[in-house]
Amino acid sequence: MAFAEVTASLISQFEAIVGPENIFVDDEKRYDYSHDKTENYSFLPDVIVRPGTPEEVSALMKLCSEQNIPVTPRGAGTGLAGGSLPIHKGLVISMERFNKILNIDDLNLQATVEPGVITEVFQNAVKEKGLFYPPDPASSGSCFIGGNVSNNSGGPKAVKYGVTRDYVLSLQVVLPSGEIIWTGANVLKNSTGYNLTQLMCGSEGTLGIITKIIFKLRGYPQKNVLLLIPFVTNEEACRAIAAIFTAGIQPSGMEFFEREAALKTIDYVEKIYASKVTTPFPENMDAYLLCELDGNDDEVLMRDAERVMNVVEKFEAGEILFAETAAQKEELWKIRKNISPAVNAYTLTKSDDVVVPRANLPKLIKGIKQIGKNFGFNTVCFGHLGDGNLHVNILKENISEADWETKIPEGIGEIFKLTVSLGGTLSGEHGVGIAKRPYMPIAMSEVNLELMRGIKRVFDPKGILNPGKIF
Amino acid sequence: MAFAEVTASLISQFEAIVGPENIFVDDEKRYDYSHDKTENYSFLPDVIVRPGTPEEVSALMKLCSEQNIPVTPRGAGTGLAGGSLPIHKGLVISMERFNKILNIDDLNLQATVEPGVITEVFQNAVKEKGLFYPPDPASSGSCFIGGNVSNNSGGPKAVKYGVTRDYVLSLQVVLPSGEIIWTGANVLKNSTGYNLTQLMCGSEGTLGIITKIIFKLRGYPQKNVLLLIPFVTNEEACRAIAAIFTAGIQPSGMEFFEREAALKTIDYVEKIYASKVTTPFPENMDAYLLCELDGNDDEVLMRDAERVMNVVEKFEAGEILFAETAAQKEELWKIRKNISPAVNAYTLTKSDDVVVPRANLPKLIKGIKQIGKNFGFNTVCFGHLGDGNLHVNILKENISEADWETKIPEGIGEIFKLTVSLGGTLSGEHGVGIAKRPYMPIAMSEVNLELMRGIKRVFDPKGILNPGKIF
Repeated sequence: MAFAEVTASLISQFEAIVGPENIFVDDEKRYDYSHDKTENYSFLPDVIVRPGTPEEVSALMKLCSEQNIPVTPRGAGTGLAGGSLPIHKGLVISMERFNKILNIDDLNLQATVEPGVITEVFQNAVKEKGLFYPPDPASSGSCFIGGNVSNNSGGPKAVKYGVTRDYVLSLQVVLPSGEIIWTGANVLKNSTGYNLTQLMCGSEGTLGIITKIIFKLRGYPQKNVLLLIPFVTNEEACRAIAAIFTAGIQPSGMEFFEREAALKTIDYVEKIYASKVTTPFPENMDAYLLCELDGNDDEVLMRDAERVMNVVEKFEAGEILFAETAAQKEELWKIRKNISPAVNAYTLTKSDDVVVPRANLPKLIKGIKQIGKNFGFNTVCFGHLGDGNLHVNILKENISEADWETKIPEGIGEIFKLTVSLGGTLSGEHGVGIAKRPYMPIAMSEVNLELMRGIKRVFDPKGILNPGKIF
Repeated sequence: MAFAEVTASLISQFEAIVGPENIFVDDEKRYDYSHDKTENYSFLPDVIVRPGTPEEVSALMKLCSEQNIPVTPRGAGTGLAGGSLPIHKGLVISMERFNKILNIDDLNLQATVEPGVITEVFQNAVKEKGLFYPPDPASSGSCFIGGNVSNNSGGPKAVKYGVTRDYVLSLQVVLPSGEIIWTGANVLKNSTGYNLTQLMCGSEGTLGIITKIIFKLRGYPQKNVLLLIPFVTNEEACRAIAAIFTAGIQPSGMEFFEREAALKTIDYVEKIYASKVTTPFPENMDAYLLCELDGNDDEVLMRDAERVMNVVEKFEAGEILFAETAAQKEELWKIRKNISPAVNAYTLTKSDDVVVPRANLPKLIKGIKQIGKNFGFNTVCFGHLGDGNLHVNILKENISEADWETKIPEGIGEIFKLTVSLGGTLSGEHGVGIAKRPYMPIAMSEVNLELMRGIKRVFDPKGILNPGKIF
């Protein structure tokens, strides 16, 4: 479908909707909004607007729908699959002014928030009331919660508490036509028609623009313990993970990282925060698990920690470090959360986000290393292995531009084929965007893709909203 | 849309697909498959077939699609909204031969089952391996698990562990065209395209026929305590529920029933099981809460039970009964699970399944009683009030046929309007089917309904699958 050009007359109409202070056409701003955290991708939009109300979003969508202008909604630009990049130019709608927590309802354990609230700001606001919003992507300090809904983000707590979509009760959405709907109700259970709420979660801004979110919340767990468990090989670490779960233990975090990731991140963190990392990371170890248990009872937690240690004893593991202080726990989580920035500071990467049934992790990680050898690339692997979700950062290092553009994507295809053959799929929490779009036929049949395209046409008959993403 | 007639030639083609022993056209069988547990509804199908494989379902759907024959998929016929009734005649596809548990994967805590497995059979099979499948509708001893997925069933454990859809990882589905797809992958997290799995859950057999289900499972909690808490008024019981949750306690069951429900059910249970109920239900009380706490640690459970008792002290409650033995717990759950059959044995009912934010329950129940007075009907109220889900059985008793058909539905409309005004919606777990279809515009806008109709057309362009349901 051919889109129309953004004319000067259209720009004045946008300006009339959002005010002159909320519209940008200069090159610097266009560059700022042209990229996210995906590789070195950059696609310049024609114009950026920052609406402040659902009604303004609605007016913009009506106009763009009439005029056939492509619209790309954007959160904080922390995406790792290029989902918010304006690959067909046109209008970027930045949600940064939707930054209010509208209500925290501690009687019903619910909150109503705008999509441009930073995830950590929301986490802290509910925590002050003794409440818990568990989804916690590594970028929580900078990402927008609306982007979390659009990509169905996870993070370390997902293994016990579920992903973003598990907390979304209802959404206010502006459709491409400009109509404003609520997808559900403020309720914990809902069997009233098709689940439009869950359809929106993870749809990467292709079906509508989220303008309000109603989340459910939990009580904040009062206590936790954190173990750092070193393993002789990464496959052995993966085997231990499956064993911990089959022993009936339910950790609130089960994070994995290779030694390479740890070393690079320790250097990076020491530089960025200008302070020495004091936690010892035993040498001669290939991988580490960060295992968190939470709850409200010290004795139960200590008993569960002992059970974890008893399971781990049966594997080739090093000495377990029991994080003693809040500062040490914070340091360990800081390292975990900075792996991705640290690796990206070292070299350009292509970042994958595969997910398999937990017990197939040893086969997955072994296969990925073999594929790397065959195609001539190194990888840093880390992630939320408690729920089978492995982040694979492929390092550019000395790979030639030509190989980076053609040979490496072939290797990624092999990783995805392996993942799917192990019962898994392409993305656990980053979304498809443009980065994984070419690989979708590996994960699903043409019939599946055609159903998705059909759903897209129902919501967006002219195909103006975030075109070129997912399929 | 005008559907075609089922001809003798078509019947022989069906027979060629499923074999003569799996096809019925006689009046007795047609009557058997004409009703479920919804009021006294009965709609005769032309023919019933019982396929045994996805390929047979596919062949049937291809044929019906070509010939424009309406198809109604059917589980165990325990539905409470008429979702499986063949209101446009044609073919009923009974899933009763899909009765195998194909795999219980205790390494990954997953199971693959066919949709015609009885829910309780599945629960028991996984329990034998120390695993837990929490969704537990009152009809668990007779309903099919595929029907649970199609209606997104809940039950008493949902308040802690979530509803059916929270356990569905992926579905094998035969589309109306006859094509067979998998909606997802065997993974705990998935951000790979639109969530077709969640779209199928609760779609009441209108988008495709489920032929395999992959569930995730949990470890089985080893211990539980059960409290029966009597309240002077039902509004006071509702207020206490909200207070228990805001105190940070997470019960694994929080069931409510009015005294009227208790008395009728005790009589019914004593008759059906030919044994005396020994648990005392204190008199001069309007309502009872059944509060279950579960976990793996006796001390923690006892402490939580004390916290519940401390909260309840602040309300007008009677003496709390602490269920001492497994037999007493079983008796209490037997009473809870038999409320619906007991009330239906007493008189014909119209059954509603409204859901609101927990803190609005006192207003809801007070309003329902007032609407009953205004429209001249009595109600028995019970349900999963921990998650705001109230079952309202409207009793026919001496109401005239004319009033039952016209005046009472008006009163139900008032109940739904009240529910929606309190932030709630029409159905928490029973689905819309035909019983709540006329009321859908109370819960959602025409734009929402048009999106749902559009999705329906994507999956089922000829509209042959379970026509006339939901919208």
